Amino acid sequence: MNLNIALLAGDGIGPEVIDQAVKVCNAIAVKYHHDITWQPALTGAAAIDAVGEPYPDETHEICANSDAVLFGAIGHPRFDNDPSAKVRPEQGLLKMRQKLGLFANVRPTFTFPSLIDKSPLKRDRIEGTDLIILRELTGGVYFGERGRKDDGHTAFDTMTYQRFEIERLAKKGFEMAMKRSKKLCCVDKANVLESSRLWRETVQAMEKDYPEVEVSYEFVDAVAMRLIQWPKGYDVIITANLFGDILTDEASVISGSMGLMPSSSVGSKVSLYEPIHGSYPQAAGKDIANPLATVLSAAMLFEDLDLTQEADDIRRVVNKSLAEGIVTEDLADGGKAYKTSEVGDWLAKSL
Amino acid sequence: MNLNIALLAGDGIGPEVIDQAVKVCNAIAVKYHHDITWQPALTGAAAIDAVGEPYPDETHEICANSDAVLFGAIGHPRFDNDPSAKVRPEQGLLKMRQKLGLFANVRPTFTFPSLIDKSPLKRDRIEGTDLIILRELTGGVYFGERGRKDDGHTAFDTMTYQRFEIERLAKKGFEMAMKRSKKLCCVDKANVLESSRLWRETVQAMEKDYPEVEVSYEFVDAVAMRLIQWPKGYDVIITANLFGDILTDEASVISGSMGLMPSSSVGSKVSLYEPIHGSYPQAAGKDIANPLATVLSAAMLFEDLDLTQEADDIRRVVNKSLAEGIVTEDLADGGKAYKTSEVGDWLAKSL
Ligand SMILES: CC(C)[C@H](C(=O)O)[C@@H](O)C(=O)O
Ligand SMILES: CC(C)[C@H](C(=O)O)[C@@H](O)C(=O)O
Repeated sequence: MNLNIALLAGDGIGPEVIDQAVKVCNAIAVKYHHDITWQPALTGAAAIDAVGEPYPDETHEICANSDAVLFGAIGHPRFDNDPSAKVRPEQGLLKMRQKLGLFANVRPTFTFPSLIDKSPLKRDRIEGTDLIILRELTGGVYFGERGRKDDGHTAFDTMTYQRFEIERLAKKGFEMAMKRSKKLCCVDKANVLESSRLWRETVQAMEKDYPEVEVSYEFVDAVAMRLIQWPKGYDVIITANLFGDILTDEASVISGSMGLMPSSSVGSKVSLYEPIHGSYPQAAGKDIANPLATVLSAAMLFEDLDLTQEADDIRRVVNKSLAEGIVTEDLADGGKAYKTSEVGDWLAKSL
Repeated sequence: MNLNIALLAGDGIGPEVIDQAVKVCNAIAVKYHHDITWQPALTGAAAIDAVGEPYPDETHEICANSDAVLFGAIGHPRFDNDPSAKVRPEQGLLKMRQKLGLFANVRPTFTFPSLIDKSPLKRDRIEGTDLIILRELTGGVYFGERGRKDDGHTAFDTMTYQRFEIERLAKKGFEMAMKRSKKLCCVDKANVLESSRLWRETVQAMEKDYPEVEVSYEFVDAVAMRLIQWPKGYDVIITANLFGDILTDEASVISGSMGLMPSSSVGSKVSLYEPIHGSYPQAAGKDIANPLATVLSAAMLFEDLDLTQEADDIRRVVNKSLAEGIVTEDLADGGKAYKTSEVGDWLAKSL
């Protein structure tokens, strides 16, 4: 197969973890006789520095014409504590999601047998957890009108949802639930928010099309609690952009490490694959960041292209590296800490 | 001391848990020669059923003229799955917060020595946790304009903050931090939201007035994760209404039971005390709900009236009941499960 993959390394540890995923994909390509063309492109703070824009048109062209996008991370502390910055790396991420039509962020949460005791949660609470959060990604308060009034003393953001936005996300949720254990949970704050009431009403109206799926409706505050108390209680969760942002990061603690959790963002022709961790600027350039979440994101990429064996192979070597302790310092636990690049080399070699 | 306390039992298990707190307060009154006048008043679904309004004017009069309000819980499933309901119990809660000027919700999170192993989190992660989340309670997306457009196909909510709202909340946070370990964390989503940028900017400008306080700024998604990974990393957290709603419920898992966590809501003349758990309708009327969060809320009430000994006494008997296993079924763990009323009787008697 000929694969044309846009490569957006981004900021902080982005370039380092992306490098390892590239090594792994290249090894897969050799093994299965694929031909991968990598198309590097600028994004984030790196793109602001180079061309003054966090998601340049040229980058969009490359992404839009690719078979898939592999993404590192963006964000830089220089912008975080400067509330007045006009151009921000995150704007690039949001623009990219919108322009590529990536309305659904798929974030699986699962445990790794060899790491289960690294979780802050007790083994019996989490063993066997296998849930997917489907976060709406191109709507809600992320994309509503925002601004200042009263000489800057009042600030506002608008949380808006249109019925079709909820429907297309919920449809993916129902379909996913049908392929899994037929349980769907819609998470909202319908006791306060009108947009949440539209979510609930829209999903309720779709229930009749999926009679086999058992649908529940829960408030986001309660879910923030139950997700930790009893994650096995959930299978597929659908939720709005902001709630999904919070809950997916929260759910990542279950597995014991953010450095392990992959994600995909889908919706139109081209899909995007990225680790859920951020740009982790303190570690940038040190060759210590955990590349596994990015490598596992590449596995999702192959899976979505129906290259199941390739995906399984990647997951297998990742599990092997965990079992054999070929891990970065965040997982070393007193044992030897390998460098980011060493872990990548080991994975590529072991394929 | 003469105390005039408004008693808002509310819905679900509200009346049952409130009853136990009343028993405990009455026992304290006898012991310390106080004179408590209880002023029961309607709120929530109960008030809707009785007078068509979840926070009737008469209830407000009673609250506004009291020395403090003791509150149970509100909310009823009849309304949750009816997105079109015009009058909702929660509106009563929001109206009450606003009319009483309760702009700060104070939610401590701590562990109980005898319960630490009931937490889904591992002992070493949580032992010694002692943090306070100060949630803004009368602003943000809870009180902004909301509605529908396009024949009901578009719904919107507005998240608005004014500088003075952030300042008065942050001031409480700084003051609280000064009395504790001088660490304040402002939690927002300033990489996306304009209202969060106003938060960050406002708090940054206040730093110079509290040179001893070490202030950090973190994103809500990251905090949702770190709160579980390492709760001891936090001392005083200040945050917006919606973020606080989610994070405080999430934080409650640390202690091992929502049934234990008290809260106060303060801001103007009269303060309100309530358990952080909800109305738990499935348990209503069964005499099985855990009354301790409400009893501990009453302890906060005495504390705020500078009746420190009274507060300490209550906390002492609560700890004693936990240590001796005089607990409701949620904490019984195979041992004897006492009734809600039995726990209340035991506490009152043991004072
Ligand atoms: C960087 C930030 C804008 C982004 C978001 O909130 O969507 C990130 O937290 C994520 O979840 O991908
Ligand atoms: C019932 C609901 C409106 C309320 C809130 O969201 O404020 C509750 O969750 C709380 O935290 O007191």
